[in-house]
Amino acid sequence: MSDAYRTLESRFRRLYALREALGVLHWDMSTMMPPGGGAARAEQLAALQVVCHGLLTEPVMGDLLDEAEGAAAALDPWQRANLSEMRRQWVHATALEPAFVEALSKACTACEHVWRKARPAGDFAMVLPPLKEVLALVREAAAAKAERLGIRPYEALLDEYEPGGRQADIDRLFAEVAAFLPDLREAALERQLARRSPIRPEGPFPVERQRALGLKLMAAVGFDFDHGRLDVTLHPFCGGVPDDVRIATRYDESDFSSAIMGVLHETGHALYERGLPPDWRLQPVGQARGMSVHESQSLLVEMQVCRSREFTRFFAPLAREAFAGAGPAWEDDNLHRLSTRVRPGTIRVDADEVTYPAHVILRYRLETAMVAGDLAPADLPGAWNDGMKELLGLVPASDREGCLQDIHWYDGAWGYFPTYTMGAVTAAQLFEAARAEMPEIPAAIAKGDFAPLMDWLGRKVHGLGSSLSTPDLVRQATGRPLDAKAFKRHLEARYLS
Amino acid sequence: MSDAYRTLESRFRRLYALREALGVLHWDMSTMMPPGGGAARAEQLAALQVVCHGLLTEPVMGDLLDEAEGAAAALDPWQRANLSEMRRQWVHATALEPAFVEALSKACTACEHVWRKARPAGDFAMVLPPLKEVLALVREAAAAKAERLGIRPYEALLDEYEPGGRQADIDRLFAEVAAFLPDLREAALERQLARRSPIRPEGPFPVERQRALGLKLMAAVGFDFDHGRLDVTLHPFCGGVPDDVRIATRYDESDFSSAIMGVLHETGHALYERGLPPDWRLQPVGQARGMSVHESQSLLVEMQVCRSREFTRFFAPLAREAFAGAGPAWEDDNLHRLSTRVRPGTIRVDADEVTYPAHVILRYRLETAMVAGDLAPADLPGAWNDGMKELLGLVPASDREGCLQDIHWYDGAWGYFPTYTMGAVTAAQLFEAARAEMPEIPAAIAKGDFAPLMDWLGRKVHGLGSSLSTPDLVRQATGRPLDAKAFKRHLEARYLS
Repeated sequence: MSDAYRTLESRFRRLYALREALGVLHWDMSTMMPPGGGAARAEQLAALQVVCHGLLTEPVMGDLLDEAEGAAAALDPWQRANLSEMRRQWVHATALEPAFVEALSKACTACEHVWRKARPAGDFAMVLPPLKEVLALVREAAAAKAERLGIRPYEALLDEYEPGGRQADIDRLFAEVAAFLPDLREAALERQLARRSPIRPEGPFPVERQRALGLKLMAAVGFDFDHGRLDVTLHPFCGGVPDDVRIATRYDESDFSSAIMGVLHETGHALYERGLPPDWRLQPVGQARGMSVHESQSLLVEMQVCRSREFTRFFAPLAREAFAGAGPAWEDDNLHRLSTRVRPGTIRVDADEVTYPAHVILRYRLETAMVAGDLAPADLPGAWNDGMKELLGLVPASDREGCLQDIHWYDGAWGYFPTYTMGAVTAAQLFEAARAEMPEIPAAIAKGDFAPLMDWLGRKVHGLGSSLSTPDLVRQATGRPLDAKAFKRHLEARYLS
Repeated sequence: MSDAYRTLESRFRRLYALREALGVLHWDMSTMMPPGGGAARAEQLAALQVVCHGLLTEPVMGDLLDEAEGAAAALDPWQRANLSEMRRQWVHATALEPAFVEALSKACTACEHVWRKARPAGDFAMVLPPLKEVLALVREAAAAKAERLGIRPYEALLDEYEPGGRQADIDRLFAEVAAFLPDLREAALERQLARRSPIRPEGPFPVERQRALGLKLMAAVGFDFDHGRLDVTLHPFCGGVPDDVRIATRYDESDFSSAIMGVLHETGHALYERGLPPDWRLQPVGQARGMSVHESQSLLVEMQVCRSREFTRFFAPLAREAFAGAGPAWEDDNLHRLSTRVRPGTIRVDADEVTYPAHVILRYRLETAMVAGDLAPADLPGAWNDGMKELLGLVPASDREGCLQDIHWYDGAWGYFPTYTMGAVTAAQLFEAARAEMPEIPAAIAKGDFAPLMDWLGRKVHGLGSSLSTPDLVRQATGRPLDAKAFKRHLEARYLS
């Protein structure tokens, strides 16, 4: 092992410890921070980001990378993968000036802060000025990185969340999905209409009981409370760090399923983080592979597993106990039909898996247009509503249910949305492969035993960190490159048969 | 204003933003973090501390300070005070190597983590190895700084908490206190014995009601919940940052006064932080002056104000309402006698103001001996118990009530303890001066109106930040240097008349 590689490891160790600190500060901002703390927090986050950027872009780093790459033959495969991730991050970082990074960080924190007020008020005009500021800076970043990476500006943004991701691949995959999904959705809705409507259990469902049930399910799936927490927030997320994973959800006292499924979704993320290779904790190769794999883990848990008949057999008695539920609304079959009901709606995070891709396709279309400069932020509400009408036949009642619903753009996360549907497709392919290899998985889930599935995911996904590229990871785990066939088979089996 | 000074301001701004981040991470560690997060948090804190240390000790800093000091005539008094605080911090920082700072930070976080388990178990042996490690590093730091500052090693530690503080001054002040306190304590206990014993209200007092009452009192005193929170912890503290002050307390369902007085104490700290000059937020001169002034603010609120007859008139009806209290135990006079009862005990944070100085004198004696190398950590429990016997006639039932009770030494805060009693003495002198200048203060407090007092403190203490030295601040606010006369008058008035 060269001294240069060793030096890089020690420098990245510090960098990642600081990024972990950023993770905790972000968690706090979304769950605990009083409103008046926003300005000070923005300064803290910006200072930390500047320091992180500075560590990555110190002049000596380029030389160290060159030198370590020159001696890469002496490295083992994990070290080589680590080195290659180091290079990738360095290219991203050196594309931007420190002052620019600071300005971008502050603009995002400020915009997100305004969004937290604008969203409940449904007041897009309130957040438009900071959103314009964010987009202008994001476009500048995209252009600078695109030049360095030799890819398109949007891809340069995407690359941060989905390393190696390209628009052509997304377009191909989304076209594959779009080719069967509208018909499948219509067929599923027709079949649903022909059957007895499921009955909604009647609330109210006190927050404390929802929370208690959520905690029980998290524990069953494998969440380790010695290394994590569950809290309340406006927009559900999984944050914190692998040894201290913080998930947060929101509660609706008239409908427990939204919080419960949100908790299970974030638990999927959390188990990925927690299962990352401990020997590589503060190194690039020890991090999650990318957001499509991350989303595959949350969607595998939420969609593939927790809306299955098997899971319902485990879940239904717990739900009846938690809410003293009795009668037809609480029967296994009814609860399962509720959790697999197809119902086109305006809110992405509440969408069923059949309509979800349309939400993502809309956002992908809008954000590529905005990054390209073809759609001005001021025109976003109109374009959003037009797209929603075209794709799902719905018009949001207000921007609160429209273009204000997601935190992403306001927080600077451009190029993130496609990873949701890439994740859904990946989840289907992974779960199909897991069941083929370990046929006992569904029966175990019905008994509340997630160990076989988590064992498979640990070996095939979680424990690999970033040691493989996303395509290689999928190929190694499932025996073939990613396509939408398993996703289609899954939807047909669940919604048409 | 010289360019050098301007550059220093911008560098310190970043440094303080990072220190604020540290403040939030520390708060989280004590209130929210699951136990398994400790190792990762230690890495995060250490990395941040190394970065802070690095910013302060960059080679260019010495030159910038020299240059700015050479052009100091063009600066206004606040800028000059700011520059002088910058120099003080630079001297402290350059006395230590970065690797040493990192080792010290990690050792403290690790030791504190063990202490959190050792304390409830009363198991000093468990925490002895990490405590030895901490002390060894602290002594090394003290020696290095003492050489640079030309003062004694213990004073070099003290100087971090009490800038300019010297052992001779502490010894003189503590001797003044020790000269009258034992007799005063005996007289107070005799007088107390001669009167009807106060009756303790009978619990249990549910945590939620204690918390609600605490929140109400915080608001009355002036705590702004748009800029702060109240949470639960093992060892009460005030943390966070001026625009987002986090206080935390612990609850005892059999006795509400401990949590309530703890909350009021921390509220005194919180209002000082919140009232620091906003124009100097992320500059050295904008920070709290030092720990004796900080403690004076918590003790002024808790001891001087909230155990007065006037406060009891405001507080008693609220307490009766909160806990549905009725009968003799809940009468104003009984509650006041409870809150001013002298009762020698083994726990510092539960001590009354008459016995409190003995706790501090013991710790001061022990920590000066340990720093000097005259007392080994292994001998601490014995020395603690001997000292407690000599000073208060008590022997702790276990180390839990003895040398494990306080977080300070385990967390690396050596040289901090004397500031508690310096603070108590300062609080008496400040409150006496405030009432002399604004005689309406006590009557306002009886009505729950803290505005006149907070207005005075804002002008004389909070808003001054570090623009004056501690002795100058006290002299300017009270008209004379610090002595124990007002403290003696206060104790005599409350406990002997």
